[in-house]
Parts: sequence; structure tokens; C-alpha cells
Amino acid sequence: MAEQATSLIPDNIEGRRRVVIEHVVPEIDGGMYAIKAIPGETITVEADVFADGHDKVSARLFYKHVDDPEWTEVFMTFLVNDRWQGSFLVERQGHYIYTIEGWVDHLTSWWHETELKINDKQHVRMELLMGAQFLEGMISRAFGDDQEALRNAADLFRDENRYDDSMQLFHSFRMQEWINRYPEKQYLTRYRELPVWVDRPKAQFSAWYSMFVRSSSKDPSRAGTFRDQIELLPRLADLGFDVLYIPPIHPIGHQFRKGKNNSVNSQPDDPGVPYAIGSELGGHDAINPDLGTLDDFKALVAAAKEYDMEVAMDLAIQCSPDHPWVREHPEWFKIRPDGTIQYAENPPKKYQDIYPINFESEDWRGLWMELRRIIFLWAEWGVRLIRVDNPHTKAFKFWEWVIAETRREYPDMIFLSEAFTRPKVMQQLAKVGFSQSYTYYTWRTHKQELEEYMTELTQSEMKYYFRPNFWPNTHDINPYMLQSGHEPLFLIRYFMAATLTSNYGIFGPTYEMMVHEAFPGKEEYLNSEKYEVKHWDWNKENKLTYLIRMVNRIRQENSAMQFTNNLHLCTIQNDQIMAYLKTHPNGNRILCVVNLDGQNKQAGMVHVPANLIGRQDWQSYTAHDLLTGRKYTWSGEWNFVELDPYVMPFHLFRIED
Amino acid sequence: MAEQATSLIPDNIEGRRRVVIEHVVPEIDGGMYAIKAIPGETITVEADVFADGHDKVSARLFYKHVDDPEWTEVFMTFLVNDRWQGSFLVERQGHYIYTIEGWVDHLTSWWHETELKINDKQHVRMELLMGAQFLEGMISRAFGDDQEALRNAADLFRDENRYDDSMQLFHSFRMQEWINRYPEKQYLTRYRELPVWVDRPKAQFSAWYSMFVRSSSKDPSRAGTFRDQIELLPRLADLGFDVLYIPPIHPIGHQFRKGKNNSVNSQPDDPGVPYAIGSELGGHDAINPDLGTLDDFKALVAAAKEYDMEVAMDLAIQCSPDHPWVREHPEWFKIRPDGTIQYAENPPKKYQDIYPINFESEDWRGLWMELRRIIFLWAEWGVRLIRVDNPHTKAFKFWEWVIAETRREYPDMIFLSEAFTRPKVMQQLAKVGFSQSYTYYTWRTHKQELEEYMTELTQSEMKYYFRPNFWPNTHDINPYMLQSGHEPLFLIRYFMAATLTSNYGIFGPTYEMMVHEAFPGKEEYLNSEKYEVKHWDWNKENKLTYLIRMVNRIRQENSAMQFTNNLHLCTIQNDQIMAYLKTHPNGNRILCVVNLDGQNKQAGMVHVPANLIGRQDWQSYTAHDLLTGRKYTWSGEWNFVELDPYVMPFHLFRIED
Repeated sequence: MAEQATSLIPDNIEGRRRVVIEHVVPEIDGGMYAIKAIPGETITVEADVFADGHDKVSARLFYKHVDDPEWTEVFMTFLVNDRWQGSFLVERQGHYIYTIEGWVDHLTSWWHETELKINDKQHVRMELLMGAQFLEGMISRAFGDDQEALRNAADLFRDENRYDDSMQLFHSFRMQEWINRYPEKQYLTRYRELPVWVDRPKAQFSAWYSMFVRSSSKDPSRAGTFRDQIELLPRLADLGFDVLYIPPIHPIGHQFRKGKNNSVNSQPDDPGVPYAIGSELGGHDAINPDLGTLDDFKALVAAAKEYDMEVAMDLAIQCSPDHPWVREHPEWFKIRPDGTIQYAENPPKKYQDIYPINFESEDWRGLWMELRRIIFLWAEWGVRLIRVDNPHTKAFKFWEWVIAETRREYPDMIFLSEAFTRPKVMQQLAKVGFSQSYTYYTWRTHKQELEEYMTELTQSEMKYYFRPNFWPNTHDINPYMLQSGHEPLFLIRYFMAATLTSNYGIFGPTYEMMVHEAFPGKEEYLNSEKYEVKHWDWNKENKLTYLIRMVNRIRQENSAMQFTNNLHLCTIQNDQIMAYLKTHPNGNRILCVVNLDGQNKQAGMVHVPANLIGRQDWQSYTAHDLLTGRKYTWSGEWNFVELDPYVMPFHLFRIED
Repeated sequence: MAEQATSLIPDNIEGRRRVVIEHVVPEIDGGMYAIKAIPGETITVEADVFADGHDKVSARLFYKHVDDPEWTEVFMTFLVNDRWQGSFLVERQGHYIYTIEGWVDHLTSWWHETELKINDKQHVRMELLMGAQFLEGMISRAFGDDQEALRNAADLFRDENRYDDSMQLFHSFRMQEWINRYPEKQYLTRYRELPVWVDRPKAQFSAWYSMFVRSSSKDPSRAGTFRDQIELLPRLADLGFDVLYIPPIHPIGHQFRKGKNNSVNSQPDDPGVPYAIGSELGGHDAINPDLGTLDDFKALVAAAKEYDMEVAMDLAIQCSPDHPWVREHPEWFKIRPDGTIQYAENPPKKYQDIYPINFESEDWRGLWMELRRIIFLWAEWGVRLIRVDNPHTKAFKFWEWVIAETRREYPDMIFLSEAFTRPKVMQQLAKVGFSQSYTYYTWRTHKQELEEYMTELTQSEMKYYFRPNFWPNTHDINPYMLQSGHEPLFLIRYFMAATLTSNYGIFGPTYEMMVHEAFPGKEEYLNSEKYEVKHWDWNKENKLTYLIRMVNRIRQENSAMQFTNNLHLCTIQNDQIMAYLKTHPNGNRILCVVNLDGQNKQAGMVHVPANLIGRQDWQSYTAHDLLTGRKYTWSGEWNFVELDPYVMPFHLFRIED
């Protein structure tokens, strides 16, 4: 009867496992995706850990680099309402995993309950005998001298004649140490393992300068080459940029080549759009000879390194009708009923110069492998940064696979997602592995929307996996708010991109020179570099270049500016002024105050919480404007600021003694 | 090379599956626990369903009773920001499951893109040819005449000479029907299956009257029995209660028996605490002979049925030292170092009359089976409601198992969790299966805390699995706010319990008679019935009994009052008045307005959103107070109320034409 009956209880359950662990943070989609970090970052983990009844519960955090043989165990501390917290430091690049253990801690319960009885002046003879049992249970888990000491302690607790000594031991620091060091994790609950991906530091802190190589020539009679680009490196490094991002450098197609301003009728000397990739000279694995040779490109990569810069390539997975894949792998494209290949469309618009890849191809495996081959080839050329063009029009599963594959071989590789699309899609791309992401910053101009966006980026779950990279413009986007060409707005939009997040970029020469003429009615540049060769006066300096140089240097010198999630939005009773504080555990504290109104002087009282800058609210301190060198003595939490957009539309204060 | 290379792509992935489904609501802990419903309820499901790129995505909801052979498929509609919504009705008790399918809908994409081209006046020859392919693909999935019709339609689309007819078909209602009816779910993503538990209606709507059987005697010279209890049923039914809950009815232990007011020294005639379960006469499977025989108890259960009432038993898993388990299963208890059994403690307090069960017993399987036997035995006695005493001091896994086991045999069984403990623990008990739960209502007295609590219960994830049962008092709790004995407060606390949630209860005679004397300094009754026999004047009527009868009748007659999550808190600019609206899809609308101040008249303007009562904001309507019969003509969204606690501290309006 009993046998038959108990078979109603599944064999695989342990009925005595009483602890529940849930609501673990961070945890992305049940642990399906990794949170992101860089070496030196501290990961703080919280969870609800509880059991039935009144017994004490204990919780520990476990973590390891996947290459480590052993887990490291970390205390978790009780916060409130069954919530526990623990932290660990990630020191190396690569994959970490972490998890949580919780158990009903009879040992701790025993100590606390005995303590309550002692305080109630009860004689705790029976409790000491229980204690002796617990101490004996510890012996097998103990190290070195502790084994002997525990045995003696158990004897002591059993000795009725040594009650006072027992009391002394019971209350000793040693007793607490033993309890913590040799817990009895009976029927413990262990949570699933959750992943962390640790990138190299540049994933978290970078300043991107984007330009077309063909516009790098100082000689107005010819287009630029990699060699010309090399000559510009000292200037870009001096401006303080550490990434040079260049649009595709592959052979450009001939069929349906676009002319100036995206005209469907090109002239014979039109150089074509670099995104119409591929010709009889090759595809994504070939170099456009107009820019130079592969060796020239490698020389550019090497030269950049000398200036502490890196070159980011541009991965646009699409083809011109002349791309070798069209001939060799027609199965990678969509075929129309008439047997022709489907060109790109955004109905009713047609883009006959571009063939999109069909990620639902029967030969998707072959396609994936070819794209992997391309990325690995670029890596062999020395490239460790890839900006991906429109990743949101390619399958998520492909990115998840190819990024993981790449990292296995090249853990330094950083992928920037150029997805300007719906929020869920942008988030998903970050989840599946993109290291950095373009954002809506380009269109967030008012204080309320900027503050809401920053709150979403730095306070929601996104903060764990989505690293924003702010761009005030790109070669595709000439935002309406800059089309006036009003200088203070160029300064403001640059400044916020460079200070709100730790990753930012500009479409360089165009932004520097404050080019603003738009294609009529569009958020695009007139005479865009996408369709023609430009020549720039690289000796030109202006207020903006002065500030770029300064801000980039200040970013390098102040660790608080090298992170994004350390942002605190400061209250200020003026809808035209935005203020934000960034702090670093090393004591570095940066306060930015920006007048969003490019036309008028604005003033207000800004609130800097004393506790965030390590001060009492009655203490005075120095707000040192690193842009002007001026120092202000501030006291209390509210202080006055006034910003004239025609003089300097922002403060970049370091909080000093 | 290719073979070796593609082996880098795991065999088990389908790279063409492009749709992501996430953030499904409702979903409790990844589907580990069921949401709850009753027959006739509509379950609304939302999810993010999206893919890369610009193709159209479609989503469908699937559900079935686990006994159904087939799934039912339901349309989901697009809301905004990649969010989709669908609903289904649960008609029967038992287990349902639901899930979501999403796929890239090339068919719908084709239709919309072609439509855009037609609107742009393009000739869509090629698109019609594609359409013919899609139509042919549908044939194999089509039923009856549609197969032939689809074949003809494909021919039509291919016929260059019948372009106008093709256009007509393209824009026809029939075309849309086909697209919806015969989708091509290529590479579809199917979400995991999520559970619903459908209880019988009483789990959602019940009025509990709690009393001690031994206090049911009308003869002051002797204690009450089941037979006396039967005689009280007509009165309780007349008051409108449908559940009679009685504390444990098992033999009471002798060792360390408690006397009056929880005294450790009992007198020979003290009847003992019913929670000190078990004596030489038996344990949880035996009946205390002082109350009658098992047949008497069964007679009570049967008699209750005649009055549309049910008897709820009380499951307190603990023993007096005289319980048979102590002798037969000492391994189910904690043994102290001296070999004695550990009694209950809340250090420094000791409860030597109670032995708690050790759910970490080596023989936990035997223990679980014995408890299952007890519950099944009670079910054989005709019991279908069990109030569980302190379930939070027993293992969650046990409850999960035993509730599931019970429901397999007795799907009508309802378990009420009497857990007054930390929020996470109360929630977990509801997740693992308790049908109803006691709440913090007993201590929520101010408007802000009541509104916050109602918002948590009816708006947070709790609304899917936690059914609150509000009690203004219990036999254990004489709340401070009622210890004054002030009549309006008894009316108010009763009224809110009975109207805020659809399940409520009172510790009956004590509450009815407005007994309020407290054990000094405690939230307990003086001369509590837990320790002694009481006699009540069952003929007594007062303002409260008058209102109880009325409110219970109104609850029966108004379906809006039979649910909890249909609550809308109404704005009113007076912190002493709380107003809430409940609506039912059948048009029933109930507005409660309560003056929380038991001392003073309070007035204010109450806001009833016109859309929630199916009116335009300029329309007038009747607010019919069902308690007084008075009708008020209200117009607009803001109307005046004034409540005198000494007359009637609340309105119970039905919104009428």
C-alpha cells in the first residue's frame, strides 16, 4: 500500500527543498541573452530568496569566467522584503556565468533563536547540545586547524560544567566566522546559470569619426585614397577621436548606378554609392581600386594604431547587380516569377541598384558561412570594429550566431548596430550580441524627451545589454533641427552626444564644418557624399573644432565620463536647461549643464544631491568648469547657473574640493 | 570544405525562423504556474511579436482544455509598438493551456505592397504572377469549394487579358478571407504552452461566515454540537452567507492544554484549543465527540447544501502531544538532543501544547501521502472547501503537489490560504495553487493604503493568480481600529470587505454583535472563543445584521460585484472618502462610496468616468442607492456626495438609466 501510494510522488522531486529563488536581476529573457560589461566592472545581482516558515534563509552568489575551473562564492546580503543582493567583479574579457544558491540555514536560525532565549534569561542547555551537533557537522567541511577547534568547541558545548565558557564561545566572533565559513547547505536551491559577456573597454568608451575615404584628398583634382586618409590621421587623433569609421570600401556596381543626389541617371564620372557593393572586381572580400590596394588599406589600419585609433569597417549585407554572389549564388536572392532577381523596394519606391539578400534562402547555411568568411577575412586584415548597416533587415538568429562565432576567434571584435527602427527590434539586436547601438538621440531634442530617453536607457532593463552610441548626425541623416545651420545648436547637439553617453560619433567633416544644406524637404544632405566625391579644407578651425578637441580630452581624463549608466538627471526649474551628473567610484564627479535653447540666455537653480557628490548638504565645494577654467564656489544643494548660447551654451564642471 | 564548414552551424537550428515572441502577459514565472479563472471568463493575452525587416508579421493565439483533442485558433490583433492581443473564453472547469504562433506573413506583405504600387498607378503584372503562386500555395490548405475557387483565381491572375477582373478580385472581401483563412505559416515561431486553472465559480465569489461549532448551542448550560450548528443554518442563509467555515473539529489534546485567555494553566472543564489537534481518540481523521459523531458532521454538510451553503473545514497541520502521529510517526517531528520532540516556539515564547510537523523529515514522502489521505477523506465526507491554517509554515512544494493531487480527483475543491505573512510568501502560496488568500485588508484602513493595496491586487501580476478574500476580523485578530467598538467603523469595515473584493468573510457572531473587548495590549479578543465555549443571542438584530443581509442580497443580484479585478478607483477630492466602480460586460455597474471617517460627516465631488458606465460625459443618469432605495439624478462626470457615519457611512449605487 505505502509503496504503491508514494509512487504518486514523482521520483525526481526533493520535497525538502524549501527555498524559492525568483525575480533575479539582471536576467535577460530567462537567461537566454547575456548582460554586457567591461573588465573592471562590478555586477550587482539581486533576487528574491525565501522559504516557507520562520527559519533563516541564506543566499550566496556564484560566478566564474567560463575558462575558470572553479566557481567563486560571494556573500549575498539581505535588503528588505525577501530581497537579497550580492556583487562580483569581472576582470577579464570573455564569457562569465553567475548563479545564486539559497538554503534554509538551520545553523543561523539556531544561533539567533538561542540568542533570543539567552536574552530572555533562559538556560539554554538543550540549545548548546544542538549547537554541539551543528559544530560536529561542520568538521567535515572545515579546513586545517578549524577541524580540531570545532571538535573542541563541540565538547565544550556538551560540558555542563563549562556553561560560562560556552556562552563566551557562543557570542564570539569565531562562532560567526564558522557559521559563515562552513554553512550546511542542506536541500539547497540553485538557480539557473546566467551569462555575462565582457567586452574590451572600447565597447564602453569610444569616440567615432566617420568619413568617406574618397573625400580625404587634399588635392582638389582627384579623389581620396587610403594613403590620403592616412595623412589625415594626425589631425583626427589631435581632435581626440579613437575610431575612424569608413563606409564600404569594396568595388561599386555599374548597373543602375546612382548619380549625384541619388539621381537614377548617373554620369560616366559619378563614383557610385559605396553601398551598391560588388562588381566584376569582386564583392565584400575585395577592395575598390579607386581607394587603393588591400596593402594600402592594411597600411591605414596600421597607421591608425600608431595614433591610438582604430578603423571600423562597414558591413552592408546587400549587393549591386554586378556582385559575384549574384552569378555564383542566385539562390541567396529572391527570384521573381519572371526569373529575374528581386531588387530592393520600399513600395512604391524601387532601388534597382541594390539586391537584398534573402535570409529565407534554401541555402541559408551556405550564406551564413560566406558572411562568416567575410568577417573573419576582415579580422585577418586587422579590423576589430564593424559598423553594421541596417542589421534589422537581416535575421536575428544570423546575428546571434555570427557574432558568437566571431567572438570565439576574435573576442576583441566590436559590432555597432546601425538600426534606426522600432524599439523592440533595436533591443533584440542588442540582446543577440551587438556591442553598441545607434539610438533615437538624433531626434530627441526637448528636455522632457531627452530625460525620458536617458531614463529608459540607463534605468530600464536595457542598461544591462544595450550600449547606446549617440550621433548628432550621420551620412544618411541631416536632422531638421540642424538644417538652420545655427552654430550654438551644432555645439549643443555635439556636446550632449559626447557627454550623455560614453560612446558617441559624428559624421565628421560635414559636422565639423557645420554643413547644413538639406535635400529639399528631407532629413538628408544636399549633394550628399554618398553620391559624390568631396574636398574639405582640413586646416579650417572653428569654435566647434576647438570644443571637440577639448571635450574629447576631458573625456579621456575623467573616468566618470567613460560610462553611461552612472548618469543622474538633476532637477532644475527651467525647461530649457538640462543638467546631469556622472560619478565614478574613484571619486571623479562631472556635472554637465546645457542650455537647450540656442537663441536665448537661460538661467536657473540646479539641484545637485549632496550624497551623490560625497558631501553633506551644508558643505561648500568647487564647481570647476573644465571648458573655461573658471571655478565657482557652490554651497548647499541648489546653485545658480546662467548660460548664454552665443558665448558657451553649457558648463562641464568637475566637482572639486 | 563546405561540409566541414557548415557543421559550425548547429543542426537543430532553423535559421529562417525570424519571428520573436516575448513579454507574454499573462505568464507567471515563465509558465511554471497557472493563471486562475472561472468558467465564462475571458482571458486576454498580449505579447510582443516581431521579426527583422519590413515584412508583415501575423500572430495567432491557440488554446484548449487539456481534455480537448484539438487546439482552437484565435486571431490576434496588432495594438502598437509590436504588441499583439487576443482573447479566449474558458467554458469548463479544469486545466486549459494557451500559446502563441507568429510568422513572417509574406502573403499579407505581398497584398499590402501590391496595394501601394496600385495606388501609385504602377502596373502590377509581376505582382499578380506572385499572387498566383500564393493562391496556388493555399489550395492544399483549403476546404471544399475554396480549392476550386483558388485554382480559378490563380489562373485569373496569370491571364494578362483579364487585368481588370484581377484587380477586382485583388480588392475583394473574398481575397482577404482567403488570406486570413489559409495563411502560409512558413518557419513559424511557436511560444511555450502556458497553463490556466479554471475553478468552479465559488472560488471567485463567496461570502464566508466563520464560527466555532461549540458556540452554537442555544442552551446556555451546554456546549454546541453539529446538531446545534444545523439549527443555525437557516439564520446564516438568511443573512446571505454561502460558506460556513468552522475551526478544527478533531479531538483536542490534553498535555499542556491551554485555559481561558491562552493561560498555561487550564481548568478541568476547559475545552482546549481546537488547533491542539489529536488525542487518544484520534487525529485529523477523527471527530471530537464533544461536537457529535461523523454522521452528525455529514448531516451538517448535507443540511448546509439545502440552504445553498457549504461547510469549509480547517486544515491545521500540527499536533497536540497526544496525537496518534506522535506515537506512530515520531520521524515526522523534530527530535531534540535529549530525544524529546520539539514543541512549537517563537523564541523566547514556547507553545508546549503544539508539535509542529518537520517537512524536512526523512520520511517526507510518507508524510505527504498521509496528508493527502486526510484531505481525500474529508472530500469523501462531502467537503469541498478547505481553509488552511498557516500554510506558510509548510513547504511550498508540498502544497503544489497536494493541491494538484486533490484537484485530479476532486476538481471542485477550493483551498483558502490563511497566511498572514510576508508578501512574497503569500504570493508563492497562491502561485502553487491556493484558490483564495487572506490578505492585509484587516490592517489597511486609510484611503491611500487601501487604494495602493487594491491597485496591487487588481493591476499587478497578482491579479492573474491571487484571489483576495477580505476579512475585517478573524478569530485570531481583533484589529486595533475596531477595539473602540464604535458602530460606524464596524459598518464601514464590513462594507468594504464585502464590496472591494468578491470573496470576503467575517468571524461571525463576534463581528455581528460588534464584540470589541481586547486582550490588553494585543490585537486579540478578550475571552477568545479559541479557549472557551460561548453562547450567543441568535435572535439579536442590529444595524449591522440588517446591512449584512442587504449587502449579501445585492451581491447576489449584481454580477459586477461577483468579480474583483473589475475594480476602478474613482477620484474624489476628499481623503476621507473612497469611491470605486465595478462593471460587468452585461451592463451591470455598481458604484460604492464610503466615508472612512467614523466620526464626521464628509462630502466631496466624486468622478465617475463616463466611458466606464457607457455614457457620454454630458448625459445624465440615475445613481440608485440599493441600500436606501433613494435615486439621484447625476449628470456629467463629477457629482456631489455627502455621507454621515451615524446615518449611513456609504452609498451602494447601481448606475441606471
